[in-house]
Amino acid sequence: MGSLIEESDDGLHANGFNPSNTAGKVITCRAAVAWGPKEPIVIEEVLVDPPRKMEVRIKVVFTSICHTDLSAWMGENETQRVFPRILGHEAAGIVESVGEGVEDIIPGDQVVPIFNGECGNCNNCKSNKTNLCNKFRVNPFKSVMASDGKSRFSTRDGKPIYHFLNTSTFTEYTVLDSACVVKMNPNAPLKKMSLLSCGLSTGVGAAWNTANVQQGSTVAVFGLGAVGLFVAEGARVRGASRIIGIDINPGKFTKGKEMGVTDFLNPNNCKKPVHEEILEMTDGGVDYSFECAGNVDVLREAFLCTHDGWGLTVMLGIHPSPRMLPFHPMELLNGRRLVGCVFGDFKGKTQLPDFADKCIHGGLNLDGFITHEIPFSEINKGFQLLIDGKSLRCLLHL
Amino acid sequence: MGSLIEESDDGLHANGFNPSNTAGKVITCRAAVAWGPKEPIVIEEVLVDPPRKMEVRIKVVFTSICHTDLSAWMGENETQRVFPRILGHEAAGIVESVGEGVEDIIPGDQVVPIFNGECGNCNNCKSNKTNLCNKFRVNPFKSVMASDGKSRFSTRDGKPIYHFLNTSTFTEYTVLDSACVVKMNPNAPLKKMSLLSCGLSTGVGAAWNTANVQQGSTVAVFGLGAVGLFVAEGARVRGASRIIGIDINPGKFTKGKEMGVTDFLNPNNCKKPVHEEILEMTDGGVDYSFECAGNVDVLREAFLCTHDGWGLTVMLGIHPSPRMLPFHPMELLNGRRLVGCVFGDFKGKTQLPDFADKCIHGGLNLDGFITHEIPFSEINKGFQLLIDGKSLRCLLHL
Repeated sequence: MGSLIEESDDGLHANGFNPSNTAGKVITCRAAVAWGPKEPIVIEEVLVDPPRKMEVRIKVVFTSICHTDLSAWMGENETQRVFPRILGHEAAGIVESVGEGVEDIIPGDQVVPIFNGECGNCNNCKSNKTNLCNKFRVNPFKSVMASDGKSRFSTRDGKPIYHFLNTSTFTEYTVLDSACVVKMNPNAPLKKMSLLSCGLSTGVGAAWNTANVQQGSTVAVFGLGAVGLFVAEGARVRGASRIIGIDINPGKFTKGKEMGVTDFLNPNNCKKPVHEEILEMTDGGVDYSFECAGNVDVLREAFLCTHDGWGLTVMLGIHPSPRMLPFHPMELLNGRRLVGCVFGDFKGKTQLPDFADKCIHGGLNLDGFITHEIPFSEINKGFQLLIDGKSLRCLLHL
Repeated sequence: MGSLIEESDDGLHANGFNPSNTAGKVITCRAAVAWGPKEPIVIEEVLVDPPRKMEVRIKVVFTSICHTDLSAWMGENETQRVFPRILGHEAAGIVESVGEGVEDIIPGDQVVPIFNGECGNCNNCKSNKTNLCNKFRVNPFKSVMASDGKSRFSTRDGKPIYHFLNTSTFTEYTVLDSACVVKMNPNAPLKKMSLLSCGLSTGVGAAWNTANVQQGSTVAVFGLGAVGLFVAEGARVRGASRIIGIDINPGKFTKGKEMGVTDFLNPNNCKKPVHEEILEMTDGGVDYSFECAGNVDVLREAFLCTHDGWGLTVMLGIHPSPRMLPFHPMELLNGRRLVGCVFGDFKGKTQLPDFADKCIHGGLNLDGFITHEIPFSEINKGFQLLIDGKSLRCLLHL
């Protein structure tokens, strides 16, 4: 990789990239393969097929570990129990080659993969009301490419290794549908751009797009992992007057303060239900609450802590539990609202480049989110940091 | 009443009203008293106390029977099992006298009672985001006046008769908090204005305010009672391109066509779930669905029949069932939204007079909703018409 990339202070830039050596050929490279639930992830050589029609092969430069990778690795949800698999969905890289018909992306482009794609042609992509593409939206059941139902990854003895979340970034090279590849400004710092793949767009987008937090709004964030803290950071930049962070890990408050968290509640130390504490603290409830925990009991607290009449709860957590929503229909008549949010309601291909500019120039604290940087080969250590609640984003250098 | 009211083609107007005879005194008048669940309602003499501070006593001229009165009479919900009680909440009348401190309403005013009041002073009333007044919002538990916890109605031997939904209109005279009395244009047709008390404002408001149906929108209405048909009528006036009505009573379609219903589905005749039929009929789902049935299984069909990515389901039904919302949290990630709606999201005192003008001059078909007119004394017949699904609004003349 060294000769193709020029290192800068805060990232890497593509320079003089020459894809002709590998275009159209199978690439043999290192990938982190998850062989089964909770089994140590193994870095090994895999074969990566060339991109087919409307597909893109990219060289991953940075990738980081998100809680969704962790839960897939642990096989928490039966839809995720597909192995062997290359996990990872938050990354940034350089286009190595493109398949037939790809016109908006060329080899050498700086790109960010998105798990929630945008084909640009379906009814949903043509509507300005949703970012849920009919073809390439986030799909936990999908483990092969859409065009032929096959994987582009295989072991040296020809057995398929499955894809994950439209992306599979824990590998030196990956193949994605072009609908899931966003071309970024060539001067953008690639390291920071990797955050756009998931946590940054999801969290800040939830605050800016889904909730539309305003100057003076009051906010509660349940779960202070990376997504929750990006929500807080987005709310801080918008001028929220109060940002209450809720987490059972008291260590999260130190980091939270950097991202604008003004008050911290640890449910284990509260004498009454968290929503009652918040209703008292805020004279009737917050304007917006964000559930970033993936727990229906937490979701109920998040719902009840908003102001009646107008409170909006944005659900960001992934809920593998079979439990249904714990609300009685009549509770909706108090005017509280609950909505889900995927990828911060951003349309990835059309809106992310502009959002990237806002991230760089708009006062968002991005550096604080990259808490660890380690070589790709130490990926299992990265998983452990996340399990232990010690990292926000552990960036793997490839 | 005769000499005080001048009859016109479509209603009654106040003229030369002289309240001095009764102001400050207990009034003895006829009221329809519900003595117990499902017991025939008895018209008998009751005593009506004068209005106290910030209260208004009105002479009811027209009142009609809504499904909420019916379910309270049947004691369907334990919160409704307060007897003896004067039911009724949809009406129009003339102010007889006002209590201390009432400045916006004077004797002789044409008024409409609202079950969802507006004090004008609380945080919620001051916000433009909600119509749920902190003090006088709809409250099924309330059966006495807010100021002193007592009833203004009593039997001739002094036993209290309880209030209902801030209104109690099945009586010649009733006492309400002034927050629950809306002053209408003195020239407005009183008979039609009675529809504003509940069904008209709720249904049309759900289409215009809550959902904001637009020209070309597609709509599904579950339950074609009066509220459902008012939703359809509101959607028709807004220019909805398709209005699908769903009801197990096939007789409702005839009436529905008048209110713009373009397609009719009887779930008993469908070979697959209603939402699947609708998804097929509409190339992916309607923009807006309205649940006017008070049944959680219907609510689920209403939710699933909207277009993913942007569909909005407005819940108007009252759900006495102990069953919780039948949705898995992850279903929210398909971009469908579900909100409750009280009184069409109208702030009653400040917005109803202007809405009344729009109703009269805006092309809404109001006449079609008053299907029956009978004397007050025949109130039990009116209840039976509603039970049999034969009436939309049966107007009682007092």
